[in-house]
Amino acid sequence: MTSNQVWRASTTAPVNIAVVKYWGKRDATLNLPTNSSLSVTLAQSDLRTLTTASCSRAATDSGTATDSLVLNGQEADVSGARTQACFRELRARRAALEAADPSLPKLAGLPLRLVSENNFPTAAGLASSAAGFAALVRAIADLYALPDSPAELSVVARQGSGSACRSLFGGYVAWAMGAAADGSDSRAYQVAPAAHWPEMRALVLVASAAKKGVSSTSGMQATVATSALFRERVARVVPASMATMEKAIRDRDFAAFAEVTMRESNSFHATCADTYPPIFYMTDVSRAAIRAVERINEGAGATVAAYTFDAGPNAVVYYLAKDTEAVVGTFYHVLGGNVDGWKDGVIQGLKPTLSIDEAAAGILKDGVSRVIMTGVGDGPVRTDEHLVGEDGRRVQRA
Amino acid sequence: MTSNQVWRASTTAPVNIAVVKYWGKRDATLNLPTNSSLSVTLAQSDLRTLTTASCSRAATDSGTATDSLVLNGQEADVSGARTQACFRELRARRAALEAADPSLPKLAGLPLRLVSENNFPTAAGLASSAAGFAALVRAIADLYALPDSPAELSVVARQGSGSACRSLFGGYVAWAMGAAADGSDSRAYQVAPAAHWPEMRALVLVASAAKKGVSSTSGMQATVATSALFRERVARVVPASMATMEKAIRDRDFAAFAEVTMRESNSFHATCADTYPPIFYMTDVSRAAIRAVERINEGAGATVAAYTFDAGPNAVVYYLAKDTEAVVGTFYHVLGGNVDGWKDGVIQGLKPTLSIDEAAAGILKDGVSRVIMTGVGDGPVRTDEHLVGEDGRRVQRA
Repeated sequence: MTSNQVWRASTTAPVNIAVVKYWGKRDATLNLPTNSSLSVTLAQSDLRTLTTASCSRAATDSGTATDSLVLNGQEADVSGARTQACFRELRARRAALEAADPSLPKLAGLPLRLVSENNFPTAAGLASSAAGFAALVRAIADLYALPDSPAELSVVARQGSGSACRSLFGGYVAWAMGAAADGSDSRAYQVAPAAHWPEMRALVLVASAAKKGVSSTSGMQATVATSALFRERVARVVPASMATMEKAIRDRDFAAFAEVTMRESNSFHATCADTYPPIFYMTDVSRAAIRAVERINEGAGATVAAYTFDAGPNAVVYYLAKDTEAVVGTFYHVLGGNVDGWKDGVIQGLKPTLSIDEAAAGILKDGVSRVIMTGVGDGPVRTDEHLVGEDGRRVQRA
Repeated sequence: MTSNQVWRASTTAPVNIAVVKYWGKRDATLNLPTNSSLSVTLAQSDLRTLTTASCSRAATDSGTATDSLVLNGQEADVSGARTQACFRELRARRAALEAADPSLPKLAGLPLRLVSENNFPTAAGLASSAAGFAALVRAIADLYALPDSPAELSVVARQGSGSACRSLFGGYVAWAMGAAADGSDSRAYQVAPAAHWPEMRALVLVASAAKKGVSSTSGMQATVATSALFRERVARVVPASMATMEKAIRDRDFAAFAEVTMRESNSFHATCADTYPPIFYMTDVSRAAIRAVERINEGAGATVAAYTFDAGPNAVVYYLAKDTEAVVGTFYHVLGGNVDGWKDGVIQGLKPTLSIDEAAAGILKDGVSRVIMTGVGDGPVRTDEHLVGEDGRRVQRA
């Protein structure tokens, strides 16, 4: 083993979009939530973060012995408490392995060099921190050859970004809020793999004015501190949503899945509106998307589409593959060639069967800048596509 | 007394804008609310309904013996259950008087001829039903020479339109939800007359797209039936708001008045957003008005302005006369000569001292079609300005 050996591990991790919403921390340092949540993991072919974790003695020898992260080609700050917490937890686990087996290379003490890339535009306003922290934790765990399960690693990823814990699994994933003060039982688990209900699709309507107002972290702190309606959500609404949603997924009951999804989104944004001063993530464009979904369901005579909104104006519309014509066809009819992101193979031959009201259509046309077509997908995947070369340098890609 | 004698009584009644919101009925027939509410009566010089109630035997003799109402020059339907309930209650009271004193003319059996006019454009989207039913009830009560107090008449007006009960008083008016099944204790009372705190002003920003989505009546039914957060509002939020607001008014404490006003508006719209399907009365224009108010308070270093929104996008901004420059000056600076409704005497010499952010200013400029400047005012006033002539015919006015 030469002094310039470079250890590397690379992984991809998915984006997840919650259908039972995480909003509120009971412990801001450990990212312990006020309630459980549940999400659908989106396909990594459309949306994923690729991260390489690496280390070598050369870096230490040359005196540049600090952890580093290059994200989308830009040097990123790793000194924040959350990133540091992930590094610390993973290093401690590696150090324990090294102490138990002296034949292992001493990696825990080496600086971490991380390089990360998203395959989707940051401007899309999609919460990339979940995929980012999941990939970071998974890649370092692989680099360190940790035996920890995804559920155990989810406890670490949660400390980076709460919802990141759900991106360590594919399919339908819950995050149990837990009860322990140290957060050891606040972790993710898989409700069902993607293969259990592979027909789930998602159409993301990216709103033009995707500039984020209040950050999720400060927004949820303000809601917990000032919304008088919030405690009812935590005490009764979410527990009921979790139970109904897990059953809907087990039963592949889209109507039940859709109703909880829409009610949960409404409930979350209601507590934002009840915050003082009020927080508004949705805009007139978001509300037009809701009206369109309501119209699609009305026209179909059944619930075939469900909207949900995170801390921003973008709509995520869930539907089943069999209802592509009613759902995608309607939005394609409204937005047409004005926006990018349609998949030719899906939209070819779609015959729009219903139209939404003109006012809502006009607002969507003016306000949606692109769409993303995707579906349910798998969890993190280890890959040999490294962003750090064998020489320890960042791989420059086109 | 000739057979063509015409009995007449005319009154004006004010608009009121709630600062603790009425939203939700526990009895839809009697208009019994799920919670108490509280409003500021607005000055009738700016916003009022004038109603003449009349009757004569001639109408009966001629065979056109049905009750009628001409509203803003248009024949209106009086067959609705709510209008009929008001007529029935008032006639019963008159009939009791006539039975006790046979010398009284027998008016209870005569058809009612009502003529009513608003001094503000219906297109303004201001809830005119409160002023309308208050004026209707007050005018008929005067025609019938009923000894009932305004509080007693408020029980009748409530059955026409819930919030109408608060327009039977001036100043600061509460509506106690009551507990009786027959609604006898669900009535309005005056918290303080206008003269107690006469410096209160209101600036109404009328949004261009004031087309109402969901009617208040069906909206509140849907909220009661489907919002999981609503019961928390009814059980805890409103009782606390009522107590704090009554004290704020007694103490003339604008900061406390403003905070409850804004929180109450937020809480009400939050329960609308939590309704399934969700109800949205506020638009991007409404939210820009909120941001402007927040900016004004920030700039003033004190709470000098408070927003509130009813079942529509119009903002009502309360402020005290001493803060006219900070509040009206800022909005005048943004909206300028583009919109009607400014009072020359007030805006002359106002020096705008702060500016709001450009995005919000642009949305307001595009979305506010007119303003109304007014303030706290008195309750119904009897008048000799009759809309029915001595000959029983409607007086045609310019």
